[in-house]
Amino acid sequence: MKKKTTIYDIANALNITVSTVSRALSGFPAISDTTRKAVVDMAKKLNYSPNKLASALKSGKTYIIGVIVPSVEAHFFASIIHCIEDGLKDSGYRVIIYQSNETVENEINGVKTLLEAQVDGIMASLSLETKDVSHFAEIIEQNKPLILFDRVNTGLNVPTITLDDFKAGYMATKHLIDKGYKKIAFVTTAHQVKIFTDRLEGYKAALADQKLPVITDHMILGGLSIKDGHFGAGELMRNHKPDAIIAGDDFTALGLIQKLKEIGATPPEIGVIGFANEAFSAYITPSLSTIDQHASQMGKECANMFLKMIGQKNPYSKIEHVILNPSIIERESTDPSTSSIQL
Amino acid sequence: MKKKTTIYDIANALNITVSTVSRALSGFPAISDTTRKAVVDMAKKLNYSPNKLASALKSGKTYIIGVIVPSVEAHFFASIIHCIEDGLKDSGYRVIIYQSNETVENEINGVKTLLEAQVDGIMASLSLETKDVSHFAEIIEQNKPLILFDRVNTGLNVPTITLDDFKAGYMATKHLIDKGYKKIAFVTTAHQVKIFTDRLEGYKAALADQKLPVITDHMILGGLSIKDGHFGAGELMRNHKPDAIIAGDDFTALGLIQKLKEIGATPPEIGVIGFANEAFSAYITPSLSTIDQHASQMGKECANMFLKMIGQKNPYSKIEHVILNPSIIERESTDPSTSSIQL
Repeated sequence: MKKKTTIYDIANALNITVSTVSRALSGFPAISDTTRKAVVDMAKKLNYSPNKLASALKSGKTYIIGVIVPSVEAHFFASIIHCIEDGLKDSGYRVIIYQSNETVENEINGVKTLLEAQVDGIMASLSLETKDVSHFAEIIEQNKPLILFDRVNTGLNVPTITLDDFKAGYMATKHLIDKGYKKIAFVTTAHQVKIFTDRLEGYKAALADQKLPVITDHMILGGLSIKDGHFGAGELMRNHKPDAIIAGDDFTALGLIQKLKEIGATPPEIGVIGFANEAFSAYITPSLSTIDQHASQMGKECANMFLKMIGQKNPYSKIEHVILNPSIIERESTDPSTSSIQL
Repeated sequence: MKKKTTIYDIANALNITVSTVSRALSGFPAISDTTRKAVVDMAKKLNYSPNKLASALKSGKTYIIGVIVPSVEAHFFASIIHCIEDGLKDSGYRVIIYQSNETVENEINGVKTLLEAQVDGIMASLSLETKDVSHFAEIIEQNKPLILFDRVNTGLNVPTITLDDFKAGYMATKHLIDKGYKKIAFVTTAHQVKIFTDRLEGYKAALADQKLPVITDHMILGGLSIKDGHFGAGELMRNHKPDAIIAGDDFTALGLIQKLKEIGATPPEIGVIGFANEAFSAYITPSLSTIDQHASQMGKECANMFLKMIGQKNPYSKIEHVILNPSIIERESTDPSTSSIQL
């Protein structure tokens, strides 16, 4: 095993102090030209490769960006990260990823870890648990760009890239009403994260606009997963018999569909629509209608925003909020006219 | 915006050099007690929080581990990462992730980036492009643990965690033969990565053991994706009419099934089996038989191996290779007895 040459080796070889070596290599003025030449020559002789991080610390840039997401297992976040990487490729920035796994404790560790790794900036989408966001303040204090995307918090005065989630909830509900469904339930998370409460408000507003009652028992607030969807469909069908169900995400919709098949109410007999357009959503039977959250555009906007911010002395001199428009992908699970084929 | 106190501020306040401050704070012996006390007092007064990285550089540990994977969009890799995190949780190690996106150029950048971020070790699964692995040598030279998992290369003398991929290929093929299929094709990647060539060898061996011919035209070597599966099924069904197809991964199987449905040969009429047991595989119609690559066990073994290595002065004093056994998950796509229900 070859040991890497360090400035300590150079110092030993020349019998001078490490700090002299360091100052000679970094162009510190108070070092004589003779000493500087001796150090540089010895560095070459010993095949010394300067620690890039050390130079980075000096220039203040590592060209590394940290991205914190709840989980890369969600295709939505994985897509966003790919598009952030794409958007930053030409500028030489590279992306490292940290998962909060939906806990605020991990998210705090993520901020610490990425700052210790000397990232030039951080992009983050909050965990379901996150209410207090003070752990992000250190990034702003270091004058590094912080951008929040998708799951954001107004407690931080930083740029955000979000979807119009009220509109997304409204759109999903209105679509079901247009397809003839009238008793529409919603299975989503109990966590008070803005995007989820916004969607629920959009759902209520769409029902109200169509003079349909908003029924508390039609809102199942639990978690977002296949298991939660399965449970939610069971609860709803046993007690409140909706004719359509909105799922908080496509995984939850998978669970809903599974349960509905088990009890002989396969969609679109009971309409089902999800959120996120996961990779599988077009391929399950029935294929799943869903709200497209435009992951690729969100990733691209994050990259652009970062490049704008990093170019400024004060990245927070102008704070922009980008709001993307959702769109709907209509498939078999909400189309009663395909019912005979499915059943 | 609060500017962070640095050692430069302390040096200015006391009118001494930065290197004196640095040496005083790091316990360097040649500093008088008076100076040290003055520096420490001023540091406290100015609310100086020492750069954790700097202390880490001193102790040689950051408690950060880097994981390089082809893409987190593959559920298999996302699961492994979750299990690595789980396995390291109690030891205080945190994980940052880098994606190679299947190019060797990105993989090289990944190694550089993670080393610049001062990780304590790296775990990696190689990109499809990777043949030369010399970019990993720097990790070993720095005496930091390097572990390769799943997609490995024998050119590096480091610990590995792999699946018995020959057995996996054999198992998939044998399963189809046992179910009555006789003309079995294979749609996989053209890249000469060990796990994929091993699976292909297992496929050939299983055919030979059952006295079935190995037909070159039955092996479609292209890429691994929904699109490649769709294309591969078209090619095979137009020209060579197999009665079953093995897909290199579950995404490719999705594309195969889509095409087979289009031409009225919905599985299990034509048997289809995949690799990886993606999240969606149980929920598509027909549900997809697949080889379980035991992502969770692979992640756990990576974590254990790292903890073993980091505890030793020379992490490479004993090099272990862990080989996991694949298992098969039988579902509708390879079960002809369910055919009438499906069609």
